[in-house]
Amino acid sequence: MAEVRVSIVGGSGYTGGELLRLLLFHPRVRLQQVTSERFAGKGVARVHPNLRKVTDLRFVSLDQLQPCDTLFLCLPHGRAMQRLPELLDKAERIIDLSADFRLNDAQRYAAWYGTEHAHPEMLSQFVYGIPELHREAMREARFVSSAGCNATATILGLYPLFKHGMVEMDQTVVEVKGGSSEGGNAPSEATHHPERSNVVRSYRPTLHRHTAEVEQELSIHGPVRVHLSATALGIVRGVLATCHIFLNDDFDEKAIWKVFRETYAEEPFIRIVKEKTGIYRYPEPKLLIGSNYCDIGFEKDPRSRRLVVMSAIDNLMKGAAGQAVQAFNLMHGFAETTALEFPGLHPI
Amino acid sequence: MAEVRVSIVGGSGYTGGELLRLLLFHPRVRLQQVTSERFAGKGVARVHPNLRKVTDLRFVSLDQLQPCDTLFLCLPHGRAMQRLPELLDKAERIIDLSADFRLNDAQRYAAWYGTEHAHPEMLSQFVYGIPELHREAMREARFVSSAGCNATATILGLYPLFKHGMVEMDQTVVEVKGGSSEGGNAPSEATHHPERSNVVRSYRPTLHRHTAEVEQELSIHGPVRVHLSATALGIVRGVLATCHIFLNDDFDEKAIWKVFRETYAEEPFIRIVKEKTGIYRYPEPKLLIGSNYCDIGFEKDPRSRRLVVMSAIDNLMKGAAGQAVQAFNLMHGFAETTALEFPGLHPI
Amino acid sequence: MAEVRVSIVGGSGYTGGELLRLLLFHPRVRLQQVTSERFAGKGVARVHPNLRKVTDLRFVSLDQLQPCDTLFLCLPHGRAMQRLPELLDKAERIIDLSADFRLNDAQRYAAWYGTEHAHPEMLSQFVYGIPELHREAMREARFVSSAGCNATATILGLYPLFKHGMVEMDQTVVEVKGGSSEGGNAPSEATHHPERSNVVRSYRPTLHRHTAEVEQELSIHGPVRVHLSATALGIVRGVLATCHIFLNDDFDEKAIWKVFRETYAEEPFIRIVKEKTGIYRYPEPKLLIGSNYCDIGFEKDPRSRRLVVMSAIDNLMKGAAGQAVQAFNLMHGFAETTALEFPGLHPI
Amino acid sequence: MAEVRVSIVGGSGYTGGELLRLLLFHPRVRLQQVTSERFAGKGVARVHPNLRKVTDLRFVSLDQLQPCDTLFLCLPHGRAMQRLPELLDKAERIIDLSADFRLNDAQRYAAWYGTEHAHPEMLSQFVYGIPELHREAMREARFVSSAGCNATATILGLYPLFKHGMVEMDQTVVEVKGGSSEGGNAPSEATHHPERSNVVRSYRPTLHRHTAEVEQELSIHGPVRVHLSATALGIVRGVLATCHIFLNDDFDEKAIWKVFRETYAEEPFIRIVKEKTGIYRYPEPKLLIGSNYCDIGFEKDPRSRRLVVMSAIDNLMKGAAGQAVQAFNLMHGFAETTALEFPGLHPI
Repeated sequence: MAEVRVSIVGGSGYTGGELLRLLLFHPRVRLQQVTSERFAGKGVARVHPNLRKVTDLRFVSLDQLQPCDTLFLCLPHGRAMQRLPELLDKAERIIDLSADFRLNDAQRYAAWYGTEHAHPEMLSQFVYGIPELHREAMREARFVSSAGCNATATILGLYPLFKHGMVEMDQTVVEVKGGSSEGGNAPSEATHHPERSNVVRSYRPTLHRHTAEVEQELSIHGPVRVHLSATALGIVRGVLATCHIFLNDDFDEKAIWKVFRETYAEEPFIRIVKEKTGIYRYPEPKLLIGSNYCDIGFEKDPRSRRLVVMSAIDNLMKGAAGQAVQAFNLMHGFAETTALEFPGLHPI
Repeated sequence: MAEVRVSIVGGSGYTGGELLRLLLFHPRVRLQQVTSERFAGKGVARVHPNLRKVTDLRFVSLDQLQPCDTLFLCLPHGRAMQRLPELLDKAERIIDLSADFRLNDAQRYAAWYGTEHAHPEMLSQFVYGIPELHREAMREARFVSSAGCNATATILGLYPLFKHGMVEMDQTVVEVKGGSSEGGNAPSEATHHPERSNVVRSYRPTLHRHTAEVEQELSIHGPVRVHLSATALGIVRGVLATCHIFLNDDFDEKAIWKVFRETYAEEPFIRIVKEKTGIYRYPEPKLLIGSNYCDIGFEKDPRSRRLVVMSAIDNLMKGAAGQAVQAFNLMHGFAETTALEFPGLHPI
Repeated sequence: MAEVRVSIVGGSGYTGGELLRLLLFHPRVRLQQVTSERFAGKGVARVHPNLRKVTDLRFVSLDQLQPCDTLFLCLPHGRAMQRLPELLDKAERIIDLSADFRLNDAQRYAAWYGTEHAHPEMLSQFVYGIPELHREAMREARFVSSAGCNATATILGLYPLFKHGMVEMDQTVVEVKGGSSEGGNAPSEATHHPERSNVVRSYRPTLHRHTAEVEQELSIHGPVRVHLSATALGIVRGVLATCHIFLNDDFDEKAIWKVFRETYAEEPFIRIVKEKTGIYRYPEPKLLIGSNYCDIGFEKDPRSRRLVVMSAIDNLMKGAAGQAVQAFNLMHGFAETTALEFPGLHPI
Repeated sequence: MAEVRVSIVGGSGYTGGELLRLLLFHPRVRLQQVTSERFAGKGVARVHPNLRKVTDLRFVSLDQLQPCDTLFLCLPHGRAMQRLPELLDKAERIIDLSADFRLNDAQRYAAWYGTEHAHPEMLSQFVYGIPELHREAMREARFVSSAGCNATATILGLYPLFKHGMVEMDQTVVEVKGGSSEGGNAPSEATHHPERSNVVRSYRPTLHRHTAEVEQELSIHGPVRVHLSATALGIVRGVLATCHIFLNDDFDEKAIWKVFRETYAEEPFIRIVKEKTGIYRYPEPKLLIGSNYCDIGFEKDPRSRRLVVMSAIDNLMKGAAGQAVQAFNLMHGFAETTALEFPGLHPI
């Protein structure tokens, strides 16, 4: 079978490393080039030590980038939109893992990111990267913008209920809890081990930028308001979004089950986790390390119309590189789970 | 100065150990006896190894308990209320650290704990154990019931706002995140290290029993509803309550500051932690390990009337043993901070 | 291609779960049955939650075990040797993951395990399970006994030097450091999260049973004495063996390099990790989580003839299930790396 | 009682913060000034957030330093020896916590630290800072040089045996395992949380500089060689030194007990921890967090003359600030345990 020639722009970070790991084992991919200005000329395993003996690939600088079929962009936020014009020539398809093309409205972008968008005319050309919401559009897409990790967990947890119009539109409270790999590989005081270890750090109580994506994707039947806060934990990988929604009618758990089952029955990477007993009866991010699953569970509060939806992912997989490969598979007509079969480890 | 003779009933657990540690260094206390049926005859340092070389005290069984001035009860929930009648003869004052006497209404107790209260007639005689709310009553009290750890963090974070009637009464969402020491020292699958390590475990999404205490204490101007969920983390000590309240008017942060400052200005163990920058600009439980402080911060959402209040404690200190010693100091007219001066460690 | 019918006896523990995970993705295996007396009738994903949606297999009890081609035994130590006779009828080949058949001398077994061996006549029929030492024997073997995790790390680190007779035979000091999953999935005080978290626990300063295997396998040119101590850490997976050997001549690092390279040049799962700079310049177990690699590095002390050899594995993979599957591949003539390609994650 | 006026030079690091915490609660100390060039003018609680509400002290720059009675130096290694001449005028007594004055031989200093000593004439005037070895000299000393943390644990564990001449002089192997706070508060790739979390990182397999101090202090009856390696763990605080010594005669455990008991019977901060059962039967650093104890245990290998000595401390306390305050107490004739009574926490 013909191979797809793939290159990664900005491959020295955590997301780039994870993409590399996945694509090196993808049976339909020829990994052509990986760029890094800082590490050009060095072996990728110097930066991604888990790939020792797996690949002899070396980083190249961006100006050495050759044409290929599909480009993955793992540049820092803000950089991708600046570089886009020159990259359009290099590949037929582009999957961007930065935040630059997630919002489809330039004004919203400016409001949330505090800067004008460099190429607002491109925003409408990008498909938002969650396959469970935009699968059909992806199959035809030239451009996909992978979703934020916290947004991915939140949206996947809430989508069925908002789609079915079962929710008070402005009362949802979401607490996302995440690990230190979310912040990338640049050391700082905030990530210095003695300071970051064992924290329960309120990291963005209000105005978390992923709120914008969440509200965009959930505003299916009208504008939605989501009250999102983020807490940083002493784990490395993993996101749990605990979503408190208020139902707009007296739905019982059976009705909720039905909606989730209908929406996600055929999804290869969604698991409804809701058991009566057991220490893993709710979604647990640590079980998902390295896997592309999103585990979703819920519990109805018998005292009120509150429904607590819990949604867990690995931020570097379903929240970044895995989500991007899933989109890539769809764009190329490959089986959607290709290179994404790793089920996660227990215990870990 | 005369010493107070103190004994601890049920001193082999984590709360008992922490009480021991505090009371052994209390300049006005003579620690008379510590009971444990399982370890009677053995040195307390066998169970609490941090007390090696600090004390030669040995556990006794409950039937060897002598009269003393003040008794601390660290029995399992449900056991304290059964034992109470026989213990009333042993001491003039009793501080109970179980959940048995926290609610002042027997029906509420039955509803939340699923069993009838053994001594409903005693409920009204216990002062709820948070000094910041019940200081004056404590000075005269014979009986004090220490608050639950999650409840303590939540109540202290929300009390000023509910007291001043600034909050929508039924919309508050609280996410408490806590460590493994909350569950006590009995091994189980849930606390088996490979399973518990690094978890972000939804532990009680709805119907957490501490909700009952929280609603009781915050129902100052009418009945209050609190939507509380609890998540268990891979830390050992510490609670962070992230409280999402909805203000009933357009209060700005200055107005909130004023209310917190007024309420807590003289409190020796409350710190308002709200800085513009820095990795510890919000309350962080890891800084409180071993200390009796409750750190409280807040942030107003510019997009709505949501106010996020963050409240952090050490569950074994301000959430249990430290709170109990603070009450003890008040009951005996000692300086409130006696034996509670340890400021916590950094880094840790 | 014909599939091999495989069953697992005692599949509810951590090693059994890891075997399951590997074998479910093995393209030449039909996983026939998994036994567990405690969980018979229940889905394996109830016990191994990472396998949700991956398999619908259910545990059966041992008396329901059907004949198959190859049996993996994951029974507790001592149980495997008792059950062996009845299991011999069930399969042509048996791979035992317990400690029962690692030593080839019944007296040594009795000395180290404190009990007589139930079937000493079988000891010589088992091939010791480290493929790097016994590959050829494995290809013909009916019975393989997987090595202990600490022994595996130690032996692989030291084998080239003992094989080439470069070491003082009775002076080697080995410090193995390991995680909590080594102890299995039964809760105890020792593994209770508040107690086990963050420990640096001297767990077996002398007389660690794996010493017997290590000495057996390294006594190539005469009896060897290894002074082994084990320290338990607060991690879940991973072993690092730090081996201090004293060379019997003035060998420099080049000479050591040569010996390691010669011995392991063709080994698919050995990586020599020895770089001049970088935070992963020595072997690091956390990079190996989920992978079957053994990473080995060394450093010569310029002040003496001491050579420090560092050897890292994932105890559940190269130290147990991965090693067993590698042996299985050899026994059946499959490519040795089949189902073992996962490279590990970074960061984790 | 008259107070001692104390200042700290270089008080913004972890050691400086720990000193501050101790000295602020020292009943005989008036903490006069704390210097920091970077934070001059800022409150110390901005850098040491555990001291919020404990002190209003602000950092000053070094050129504002006033005369005082005793100076603690917490400058980086190499800086202290350069600054010493100007500091001699400021205080009668100086306690240096850097590595600059630990070795009493300038050539050894140059050999281990790779640079000439700036003031070799001062080396003989500093007393090496371990009170258990140099108590009498300290009482009269003007200058004390606090020992390295790894050296402290190792020396305290081995001193009784070397003092009594019971050890093969050149065969000792020491493995020290430590936490991330050892490296100070400057972020780097090595301490970036995703990289440092859960490591078992061989950090200095040979040529660790603390070896020089260890050999100096143990060379009581002739030159001693110690083979020391250091491994960095994912904990924040704590050192465990596992020392493998080879006895020069057939001493049994009773003989060892006798020697330890005799040497340390009166020591307020040494505990011999050696129990038959229990998960804390050997020394455990996590129990010592915040305390000044050094816990020492041992186990004789029945198969050889190897004795395994385990020695645990908190690197920032007995390994730095606590040790320095203990020396300070001796220098001023205060009770040796003043301000050092905190016993550590359990669980933690």
